[in-house]
Amino acid sequence: MPRIITFGEILLRLSPAGYTRLVQAEAFDAVYGGAEANAAVSLCAFGMEAAHVTALPDHAVGQAAVNALRRYGVDTSFIRRQGRRIGIYYLEKGAAARPAQVLYDRAGSSMAEAEPGDFDWPAVFAGADWFHFSGVTPALSQNAAALCLEACQAAKAAGCAVSCDLNYRSRLWSMEQAAKTMEKLMPYVDVCIANREDDADIFGITAPGDPVEGCKEIARRLTERFGFGLVAMTMLDAPSASQNRWSALLWRDGSWVCSRRYDTQVIERMGIGDAFAAGLIYALLDGQEDQRAIDFAVAASLLKFTVPGDANLVSAAEAERIAAGGAGGVQR
Amino acid sequence: MPRIITFGEILLRLSPAGYTRLVQAEAFDAVYGGAEANAAVSLCAFGMEAAHVTALPDHAVGQAAVNALRRYGVDTSFIRRQGRRIGIYYLEKGAAARPAQVLYDRAGSSMAEAEPGDFDWPAVFAGADWFHFSGVTPALSQNAAALCLEACQAAKAAGCAVSCDLNYRSRLWSMEQAAKTMEKLMPYVDVCIANREDDADIFGITAPGDPVEGCKEIARRLTERFGFGLVAMTMLDAPSASQNRWSALLWRDGSWVCSRRYDTQVIERMGIGDAFAAGLIYALLDGQEDQRAIDFAVAASLLKFTVPGDANLVSAAEAERIAAGGAGGVQR
Amino acid sequence: MPRIITFGEILLRLSPAGYTRLVQAEAFDAVYGGAEANAAVSLCAFGMEAAHVTALPDHAVGQAAVNALRRYGVDTSFIRRQGRRIGIYYLEKGAAARPAQVLYDRAGSSMAEAEPGDFDWPAVFAGADWFHFSGVTPALSQNAAALCLEACQAAKAAGCAVSCDLNYRSRLWSMEQAAKTMEKLMPYVDVCIANREDDADIFGITAPGDPVEGCKEIARRLTERFGFGLVAMTMLDAPSASQNRWSALLWRDGSWVCSRRYDTQVIERMGIGDAFAAGLIYALLDGQEDQRAIDFAVAASLLKFTVPGDANLVSAAEAERIAAGGAGGVQR
Amino acid sequence: MPRIITFGEILLRLSPAGYTRLVQAEAFDAVYGGAEANAAVSLCAFGMEAAHVTALPDHAVGQAAVNALRRYGVDTSFIRRQGRRIGIYYLEKGAAARPAQVLYDRAGSSMAEAEPGDFDWPAVFAGADWFHFSGVTPALSQNAAALCLEACQAAKAAGCAVSCDLNYRSRLWSMEQAAKTMEKLMPYVDVCIANREDDADIFGITAPGDPVEGCKEIARRLTERFGFGLVAMTMLDAPSASQNRWSALLWRDGSWVCSRRYDTQVIERMGIGDAFAAGLIYALLDGQEDQRAIDFAVAASLLKFTVPGDANLVSAAEAERIAAGGAGGVQR
Amino acid sequence: MPRIITFGEILLRLSPAGYTRLVQAEAFDAVYGGAEANAAVSLCAFGMEAAHVTALPDHAVGQAAVNALRRYGVDTSFIRRQGRRIGIYYLEKGAAARPAQVLYDRAGSSMAEAEPGDFDWPAVFAGADWFHFSGVTPALSQNAAALCLEACQAAKAAGCAVSCDLNYRSRLWSMEQAAKTMEKLMPYVDVCIANREDDADIFGITAPGDPVEGCKEIARRLTERFGFGLVAMTMLDAPSASQNRWSALLWRDGSWVCSRRYDTQVIERMGIGDAFAAGLIYALLDGQEDQRAIDFAVAASLLKFTVPGDANLVSAAEAERIAAGGAGGVQR
Amino acid sequence: MPRIITFGEILLRLSPAGYTRLVQAEAFDAVYGGAEANAAVSLCAFGMEAAHVTALPDHAVGQAAVNALRRYGVDTSFIRRQGRRIGIYYLEKGAAARPAQVLYDRAGSSMAEAEPGDFDWPAVFAGADWFHFSGVTPALSQNAAALCLEACQAAKAAGCAVSCDLNYRSRLWSMEQAAKTMEKLMPYVDVCIANREDDADIFGITAPGDPVEGCKEIARRLTERFGFGLVAMTMLDAPSASQNRWSALLWRDGSWVCSRRYDTQVIERMGIGDAFAAGLIYALLDGQEDQRAIDFAVAASLLKFTVPGDANLVSAAEAERIAAGGAGGVQR
Repeated sequence: MPRIITFGEILLRLSPAGYTRLVQAEAFDAVYGGAEANAAVSLCAFGMEAAHVTALPDHAVGQAAVNALRRYGVDTSFIRRQGRRIGIYYLEKGAAARPAQVLYDRAGSSMAEAEPGDFDWPAVFAGADWFHFSGVTPALSQNAAALCLEACQAAKAAGCAVSCDLNYRSRLWSMEQAAKTMEKLMPYVDVCIANREDDADIFGITAPGDPVEGCKEIARRLTERFGFGLVAMTMLDAPSASQNRWSALLWRDGSWVCSRRYDTQVIERMGIGDAFAAGLIYALLDGQEDQRAIDFAVAASLLKFTVPGDANLVSAAEAERIAAGGAGGVQR
Repeated sequence: MPRIITFGEILLRLSPAGYTRLVQAEAFDAVYGGAEANAAVSLCAFGMEAAHVTALPDHAVGQAAVNALRRYGVDTSFIRRQGRRIGIYYLEKGAAARPAQVLYDRAGSSMAEAEPGDFDWPAVFAGADWFHFSGVTPALSQNAAALCLEACQAAKAAGCAVSCDLNYRSRLWSMEQAAKTMEKLMPYVDVCIANREDDADIFGITAPGDPVEGCKEIARRLTERFGFGLVAMTMLDAPSASQNRWSALLWRDGSWVCSRRYDTQVIERMGIGDAFAAGLIYALLDGQEDQRAIDFAVAASLLKFTVPGDANLVSAAEAERIAAGGAGGVQR
Repeated sequence: MPRIITFGEILLRLSPAGYTRLVQAEAFDAVYGGAEANAAVSLCAFGMEAAHVTALPDHAVGQAAVNALRRYGVDTSFIRRQGRRIGIYYLEKGAAARPAQVLYDRAGSSMAEAEPGDFDWPAVFAGADWFHFSGVTPALSQNAAALCLEACQAAKAAGCAVSCDLNYRSRLWSMEQAAKTMEKLMPYVDVCIANREDDADIFGITAPGDPVEGCKEIARRLTERFGFGLVAMTMLDAPSASQNRWSALLWRDGSWVCSRRYDTQVIERMGIGDAFAAGLIYALLDGQEDQRAIDFAVAASLLKFTVPGDANLVSAAEAERIAAGGAGGVQR
Repeated sequence: MPRIITFGEILLRLSPAGYTRLVQAEAFDAVYGGAEANAAVSLCAFGMEAAHVTALPDHAVGQAAVNALRRYGVDTSFIRRQGRRIGIYYLEKGAAARPAQVLYDRAGSSMAEAEPGDFDWPAVFAGADWFHFSGVTPALSQNAAALCLEACQAAKAAGCAVSCDLNYRSRLWSMEQAAKTMEKLMPYVDVCIANREDDADIFGITAPGDPVEGCKEIARRLTERFGFGLVAMTMLDAPSASQNRWSALLWRDGSWVCSRRYDTQVIERMGIGDAFAAGLIYALLDGQEDQRAIDFAVAASLLKFTVPGDANLVSAAEAERIAAGGAGGVQR
Repeated sequence: MPRIITFGEILLRLSPAGYTRLVQAEAFDAVYGGAEANAAVSLCAFGMEAAHVTALPDHAVGQAAVNALRRYGVDTSFIRRQGRRIGIYYLEKGAAARPAQVLYDRAGSSMAEAEPGDFDWPAVFAGADWFHFSGVTPALSQNAAALCLEACQAAKAAGCAVSCDLNYRSRLWSMEQAAKTMEKLMPYVDVCIANREDDADIFGITAPGDPVEGCKEIARRLTERFGFGLVAMTMLDAPSASQNRWSALLWRDGSWVCSRRYDTQVIERMGIGDAFAAGLIYALLDGQEDQRAIDFAVAASLLKFTVPGDANLVSAAEAERIAAGGAGGVQR
Repeated sequence: MPRIITFGEILLRLSPAGYTRLVQAEAFDAVYGGAEANAAVSLCAFGMEAAHVTALPDHAVGQAAVNALRRYGVDTSFIRRQGRRIGIYYLEKGAAARPAQVLYDRAGSSMAEAEPGDFDWPAVFAGADWFHFSGVTPALSQNAAALCLEACQAAKAAGCAVSCDLNYRSRLWSMEQAAKTMEKLMPYVDVCIANREDDADIFGITAPGDPVEGCKEIARRLTERFGFGLVAMTMLDAPSASQNRWSALLWRDGSWVCSRRYDTQVIERMGIGDAFAAGLIYALLDGQEDQRAIDFAVAASLLKFTVPGDANLVSAAEAERIAAGGAGGVQR
């Protein structure tokens, strides 16, 4: 079975139930997640083997974060228990005209303060086939960026394919900082995942106008610049927080394939991109050709709009049913 | 006041709150229901008198099932307390692209193991006007099928009209088994309720193409084959688990009437068909002519899409308000 | 900072969670609100200063009502603690075809039994800029109507602008009673808020046909009759309890401006009109010209469709973002 | 099977979860109960037949109150649906040093405003063996007191035994009012239930000192004054809201029997006395001699300290197990 | 690190929140556990390595049971996904005079229907140090008993120590059936865990009178009969469901050590014995001498009285703190 | 009405419901509190006027913390909205043998990073009668300690009495650090509150043996060293996390008074000391003589053991009822 390594912070997500605003909340639902860990959980739910690498404090809440991954089958044996705190994000769910709100409280986390040398990368990558990270990890701190570089190098040394979801977060770093750091990591990346909103902007690559044409243009230029084997561009359109449109395209060697465009009710907005990344990695490791791969990745992440929490707890069969055009009745 | 007898299993339904998946659940909402019991509750909510016949174990959970019917006014005095277990179904609510999931755990239930002779049918049908059952009951076991036959015969002997919702469930029996058993029961049936998806398929009756035309064709052939006085065909279209379309038609003596077709958000998908059956029985016992009857039955079951739980807790006045074109503001 | 005085009953709202019907409820969410108090909370959330005047019983539940206002910054120092009970309303949330249900249990409340002379109006209005009440307050009792008159007179004496949301409630009084009482209060009103459904009907002013044209006609005639400086007409269209359309127009001196018309999912239907009133008062006190004012008031109240509870807990910046055309993604 | 008639108000009880104070509450658990209705539910749980007579408003919350009784098997066919409101009581659970708090909001309830002639007493008492009421019912209003007198007379005419739990509530009426009204009802009473705290005080009967001796003295004097066939005196000692002591004695014809005295943790303090009354009525109708009867009644009500809600949902077998000295392990 | 294998059924436990009775429940908390699986979780919480062997259906609820073990670190790679259902038990928590109620619904479970040959025992025991099972497993079915025998033989072949908690359950089998089956398994057992209530009764070994003396006598005779290296006898005294007493003794080669006797409030009564077994296995594998071992096992299981759910989620350090006399303040 | 100023951090407290362990939690109850803010809330609940001074981030969660104080009447107008985060503490409730666990995550909070000069102390203390802080505040950071000194000086300049609860927390600073900082603040303190466990240890003042005698000795020496007008020593004994003993004594000018010693069930352990401080401040400002003051302070804080959350929401009348010997029945 293919084995995937993911690397990045796990946060405690605190969100009021339903559509309660943060200012009204008397309780928070607690979910543990992070861009890369979410992808690891999704890959396990698809039936593959995934190990997540991170640092977490050695106390009960850190243990709860470890357990949240173990519960869904992720190998947590490379997680370091060190540092002082687990990063937190407060999530206020959006609805209709009101967008979701995310407040980060992640400075000083165990992951942000982990240092080069903290992880035994050769051991991590022994027997692995794929390495996945997102732009959130190097954004955490200079140390985290250095650790990303270590990981990329070790992954390549171990013969892994490497994927990166650019995942630009303006509240974590500026475009200039992002560009400077990400440029050093891109040479190791085989599969780049981006969206048109701002991911490629960090490299000064933009393309206005029609979404599909714009995405193709961005993918073309990203490929030219960094020599990616494959670029995936996701297209999310959110005129209302309760109703979104979702599709993606794959660019490889100057040619491209595009998924169907779905219109979906939104039960949960978090983790869509991570679910897409996991779907794409699964499909590629599964040897699917590009059209089927992008269809699978989009279908899998379409289901994520209905799954509470950060991670996409759907099986490969469920995603394939959607990719094949399945509809929303009752299965009994 | 008209008195209706219903017969069938009551299950404990276990469903995670909201859109939580079964695999995420730390708790289950507990609801007691079953196709025929749901119809009985709905008929009581409309103001009629209904008694439900079933078998339940003689322990606290069996008592909770009895109480769930008593609470809404159903006469439970004919329920036998025997056998070893109450059947269970796990329900995972669907949303958008993700269909609802139903897992049955009903083998060996008190109802499935009840035996001919367990019920005093003449006492049950004394003073009754109508008998209703669905295809789920004879599907439970050979004994249950034999009990259905006993009930039909006793109902007819007592001068009751008999309705049957074909309600084919592929996880309970094969089409061949269903056909063989149901054929023996159909001669007692006056009002047959079916849908185009698979109910009539058990008798080899199918009709592709336009829903309304297809349903008319199926109703015509069902009538020819079994001599039903009335056939009701329901039409559910579920492109998304969150948004459905709903309508029905009535076929009587070669002529037909059709309801308006509604487009509705889905709060709760379970029990729509049972709510329709109850609405139809009510309207017919109330002496409504066919167009008004189908309009009432569809309006009543349209409201079921908004009522949590298995049974349709709406009044006749509420259903009539919808049938008359009422909209969804605030009543204060 | 502008200071607004509101006057009216605070009720305990008891509503089952989610879409549970009243007849199914085993628990109620408890929210404290009332038309005018809701406006006061919203004004504080916008950053203005508001004091609410009412009477509440001197026991723990009355204190909880006071605290619900204090929590969001409303000045409660003029609330009288007297009388025997807090009024209650039971709210059953609607969905799709099923309208929301409101059951009032407010007879004999502290507010309904408060008497002329109970409030020290000169102290209340010292330093105030605006007085707002709705037609619900004089509908409570003859004493409450007399207190409204006292308040209007004191407000005018203190140089306040006065706004009134006609807010006709047929379960509280007849059109004749309403007309008789409201006519005496209208001379003090500068800004009148109404809808086409029934508010102006109490004065025999109706206008069928196209909503916008009808509203303009009603506003024109209201202005003629009572000499209002400004009339705001809200237009709510609720074909489904889950999906509404919302817009409004302002009429001043024979000319008018109209907001964009929004189509919105409905998370919470209560308090839309109160949120609109607060938005309008804020915009006018903020010195916005009419088009911007109506755009702000409609945008603010559009957000109320997403905020659980009676009051509109959104900031002025959030409302302005919507008025400027902002959409529903994630802010992080 | 013996049939018991109970008569009295059903209230909606609103209580915060756990030990939350009223002033902190954001939600209330909703339970429907009342002294006499609680006894009716308990008698049905013991396996007897009970019908409760009351008046409730004809709306969804009134229906929920009816359903709460039906659920546990009480015959609700004599409940009148009339009047404007259901009485409410707010309950704040006590713990350790903090006593429970009860706030009544029951003025103007359907029951308080029911009038002589509203109930068809001969129909109510047809086939009945016993009538039970408490001092709370005549305390509601003069009409309610007159209805109690009607009920007592009809019960006697139908050959029923009559029991009354004096149940003095100082927040409902003064001792003088109570004495004046209760004196007229006592001649119809066969079995009187009282405690030493204040019940008999209304008749000026007190007895300080040792609880058992005091209770015997009160029972003797009550019997002398009103000629009761049987007097039951309950003894509750509550040094902490979390830990109580509970016992009772029966006085008949100058001789007496006394139960064991139990020391119990308190999960739920409401309805202890009602559970005792039901236990005593059951034991007497079951033909138990006095010692066994008082042991059963105290054991049954001891279990009530562990049952959430107002009514004692325990079987006769469970109560007998305690009366026989059973302890608190696990039954599996 | 020592590695322990456990074998037995995992059930879905359904229990109403708090002290709600089953007959009142509208929801159930869902916990997955079983005597041996609970021990496995506890051993992982102590820091050892444990793998649990069982059969579970291949559906979402079966997966949830697997995940419940993975979450706390148990190796689930030997779990077979087969059969039709997961066993269920309904748990009603007890309090004060009311004992807890357990209703089993486990007939026909995947575990009960697993067959000899279903498990690859040599692979299971590769690298293992200890095998633990309880008398519940062979009680499930003849196949389960045969599987237990297979497991014992394979464990011995792999050089493992074997422990068995007799755990007699009268609702699963008779004493005669138990004796006949257990006698065949005892020769493989090194460490036997029993209580005086009924465990040893199956072998006709009883000893009335003083608990400690009685337990010593039983331990002596069990040792004589089956040649156990070590016998642990637990002593639970439950005069109230809310307050228990707990202690144990160890018998080895005719000599014995006894723990302190604790008096504890009961938050959760399930899994005490399983926690004791895990504590004992841990202490023995950790090389502790007998007095320290029994102190550790009793302290660990004393903490279980405070941990919700079936399994004892406490660390070895927490148990050692209690064994050393630590008290219940706040650690901050 | 006396006006009290309090100064210190407000934390977000995250605690699993009931007795759930942190490692099991899927949700957290959210409460906002801190030693000094808790005292402010309690003083407002007693009917006095209190303003709390702190720094909180300018986002929705910071606003929720402000609102939590406003809700209960605390003047929040001096709270600075600045800095990056609100401090957090995770609380796992203890029970029986298992002590409560507190995990701090408060480094880098807005309060810890506030700087000298951030607060306008003369404005804060205008019209104030009393200043209260605890040893937690100077422990946060050097800046916080400097701010404490500023506050003490300004309080004295404004003629306020000053009280300090030593409140030593070993996880925040060492005894040496504490001594060095606290010594500079003590000269401003009139009323010192301490316990025997470790508070006075920071100054090297200890006294073993009998609690009362030990406390007197410590009080004597504290008075000698720092010249306090009054020293209050609290005595908490927690053999079990579910059952505590609580008392205190006051030392003034070489003489002392001691409260009754209470034995209490523990519903909530947090905030006992803060409730005591508030009770003492109230009693002293109310002019009560020492015996009555210590009785009031102990009774008030005894009630805190029953109040969920950090702050003591009880009225002065409730505390006086306990101080006068009131017991735990039902008040209705």
